[in-house]
Amino acid sequence: MNSAKHILLDLYDCDIELIDSSEFVLSTLVKSAEISGCKILNKYFHKFSPQGVTGLICVCESHFSIHTWPEYGYCAIDIFCCKDETDKSIEFLKKSFKAKKTKTRVMERKFINEDNYDKS
Amino acid sequence: MNSAKHILLDLYDCDIELIDSSEFVLSTLVKSAEISGCKILNKYFHKFSPQGVTGLICVCESHFSIHTWPEYGYCAIDIFCCKDETDKSIEFLKKSFKAKKTKTRVMERKFINEDNYDKS
Repeated sequence: MNSAKHILLDLYDCDIELIDSSEFVLSTLVKSAEISGCKILNKYFHKFSPQGVTGLICVCESHFSIHTWPEYGYCAIDIFCCKDETDKSIEFLKKSFKAKKTKTRVMERKFINEDNYDKS
Repeated sequence: MNSAKHILLDLYDCDIELIDSSEFVLSTLVKSAEISGCKILNKYFHKFSPQGVTGLICVCESHFSIHTWPEYGYCAIDIFCCKDETDKSIEFLKKSFKAKKTKTRVMERKFINEDNYDKS
């Protein structure tokens, strides 16, 4: 293994009440990590006033994060993981938050990079 | 504001001892968040055996994360932030870990997405 998969998952037109509930956001993100077979090391959640939730889960395999903007019905989720079972986590997250539209970008984080560096 | 900036920063050929020190990785990531003017809500770090460090910092403006692979001299850093001062944080991180090569990708996380969705 010489790279990790970093998934940027944007969820649109979500259920506003669900994505503003820290309890629901917490339990959903934890379950999505478990579905991928990740081992949870730590979880942290913060509820913003008047709205919005941030959640960070540290797993042995890297991390899961979520930031919600209920005023837009939007969630920004990251899955940084070395496991292959992340497709199931993505589907679970989409369904749980009742997202009507989604955008998924899979970014490769290469441990060795032969040529594609920033110009200095 | 209807989007957030999400920076994927890959650091190569770093100082191996520095990126394997949880104390150094912790203090450096915290300082990089402060340089951007972010307010820290929570910090969590984990040292892996035999090597490697993961760090997650929750800030009011979203999050900073780091995963290090000393065996490759590599760090994967994320800066998910609504602040404009992130350039200073990036320069600070590059210098602190003595990265010889870097790759920076700036991803837009749009709260409203007019057309560019996943095909269902």
